[in-house]
Amino acid sequence: MEVLTLSTYWSELTTSLEPYVPGEQPKDRTYIKLNTNENPYPPSPKALEAIREAAGADLRLYPDPSCDALRETIAAYYGFAKEQVFVGNGSDEILAFAFPAFFSANRKILFPDITYSFYPVYAQLYGIPYETVPTDEQFRIDPKTYAVENGGVILPNPNAPTARFLLVNGIKEILEANKEQVVIVDEAYIDFGGESVAPLIAEYPNLLVVQTLSKSRSLAGLRVGMALGHPDLIEGLNRIKNSFNSYTLDRLALAGAVAAIEDRDYFEETNRKVVATRDRTTAALRELGFEVIDSLANFVFVTHPQKEARELFALLKERGILVRYFNKPRIDRYLRVSIGTDEEMDALLDVLRDISV
Amino acid sequence: MEVLTLSTYWSELTTSLEPYVPGEQPKDRTYIKLNTNENPYPPSPKALEAIREAAGADLRLYPDPSCDALRETIAAYYGFAKEQVFVGNGSDEILAFAFPAFFSANRKILFPDITYSFYPVYAQLYGIPYETVPTDEQFRIDPKTYAVENGGVILPNPNAPTARFLLVNGIKEILEANKEQVVIVDEAYIDFGGESVAPLIAEYPNLLVVQTLSKSRSLAGLRVGMALGHPDLIEGLNRIKNSFNSYTLDRLALAGAVAAIEDRDYFEETNRKVVATRDRTTAALRELGFEVIDSLANFVFVTHPQKEARELFALLKERGILVRYFNKPRIDRYLRVSIGTDEEMDALLDVLRDISV
Repeated sequence: MEVLTLSTYWSELTTSLEPYVPGEQPKDRTYIKLNTNENPYPPSPKALEAIREAAGADLRLYPDPSCDALRETIAAYYGFAKEQVFVGNGSDEILAFAFPAFFSANRKILFPDITYSFYPVYAQLYGIPYETVPTDEQFRIDPKTYAVENGGVILPNPNAPTARFLLVNGIKEILEANKEQVVIVDEAYIDFGGESVAPLIAEYPNLLVVQTLSKSRSLAGLRVGMALGHPDLIEGLNRIKNSFNSYTLDRLALAGAVAAIEDRDYFEETNRKVVATRDRTTAALRELGFEVIDSLANFVFVTHPQKEARELFALLKERGILVRYFNKPRIDRYLRVSIGTDEEMDALLDVLRDISV
Repeated sequence: MEVLTLSTYWSELTTSLEPYVPGEQPKDRTYIKLNTNENPYPPSPKALEAIREAAGADLRLYPDPSCDALRETIAAYYGFAKEQVFVGNGSDEILAFAFPAFFSANRKILFPDITYSFYPVYAQLYGIPYETVPTDEQFRIDPKTYAVENGGVILPNPNAPTARFLLVNGIKEILEANKEQVVIVDEAYIDFGGESVAPLIAEYPNLLVVQTLSKSRSLAGLRVGMALGHPDLIEGLNRIKNSFNSYTLDRLALAGAVAAIEDRDYFEETNRKVVATRDRTTAALRELGFEVIDSLANFVFVTHPQKEARELFALLKERGILVRYFNKPRIDRYLRVSIGTDEEMDALLDVLRDISV
């Protein structure tokens, strides 16, 4: 933690917070950026065209606060009703609404010990107590460990930063054991090979599935996420949102997101490329002596038996390649490496060979 | 209040909320929209061009989470340092961060009885108690009434929906009486003739000034607001923001906002037009027998001694003109009418004459 200046004007809450720290976005030089899980391919040309068309006189007008066109597009794409769809300013905003919408100060929620590091930050922001559930030595989530008294469950699938994927039956087991409270499955990385549990929302009114256009639709810069769930859960999110900010998606984001969702061919083609590069990179890293967890995400989580992750991180950065290192218990020997283009991954592999890993 | 479906999955907070209701955005027919204080003129052509240029491959990358370029542009424009500037996804988001950043559950905050109706919603969302301070019979704010024990003050200047403006000395008096807590001056409508208190941030470390690009820069559809204040207050906002969503402004909003701020000539020209139309409309409405509060905003707040506001609202809507009617104590005989183009205001005046007001 950095040393903090305190202010007498801050609320107790503000003083107590330890905010989330996103992956670095350095401006000192050009890096091969494999540190924030961005997609190496540009967004759908149709999305870019839709944005340029929306950049006109109508920007003087507020956007549609209910985001109907985008919600209808998502509903049609996935075979749901509009009332089962919520959209937000990135999936992070949706999670920031979901915590106060469904979790309370009087009951502990559960999430894995190794997971997206924003979860404890949301819990702290809203005063929601939590307990982390240990993953096993291979970072696997055991559904049975979620069959305990709790006030809600949240977990990413695939998990971040481990890339571990829990099969649909495992999620079902967690849903069955937690019918009285909300289970949020954060599927930010689902489109790179995993099977979504979104179809289960018809069966489980306690299931909220959160996805994003940041990764698989190459739109991290546009800030659009979506949630799928029973209309009651969607209405819960709406109640928080409409007590916070009526218009969280601007007209350009709405227009671009509609076109991106509709361009299924482009989406499938770029995802195929990312998956192929990931699998090739996984094999090459293993040849170099890395242990690589099987990934269904657009990143790999790797460790080397002889090399310190922190040193590898620094050496790679020196050579112009940014990856993510987490100085945290249990994962401080690992690096999270986003999947770039084939050329970018070859550059990574070349540097690793060169520094004789 | 509509009848609400409740869900067992909602938190107590969710169940208790009465969300803000924005002005209607009907899709049934084309209206002359004078109900949500949008600017009748398009955004700066330079802002639109900047957005179109930003609609490229880089949208695959996250935006700058610290929004440095935009904060530097705003700082340079107003003569402040970047550390005195915060930007958010509309000024509503900034207010939604400011409430938990500076106000607490253990002390009542103050705001006027007639004011922006989102304030009590924020207070409810964060469990912050509040007391409303009566405006006088002409809706004027008396600074002396804010010299009482409180945990913070927030007020719009010009006030909404009354359009009443409090002179800089009045705000100073409130600041002097409240040096131990934060005073937020919400200047959403400041650019239409009022004098901003932004220069006072150097003198008053307890002053936060909030502005928006939605009204005077014709960018309601882009969602960009700004706050100006002592670096400690800006850091307080950052701590809440970074516990909520690291990237609330997308790349297009950042690019468009920079260009809009830099295009001072266009900004001043459109504001002059709005002000001229407002003053002409005010005179014409008075000729028709309306009482019109002197306005330094891009709307007027009007009442007619013989006509019910609710009926006028309905008659105007029938004739294709949308204005805002608030069914609330003290203001239920008033209409808030946004300033459109001269042609739109002439159409309004024609209808009013026609229905023999």
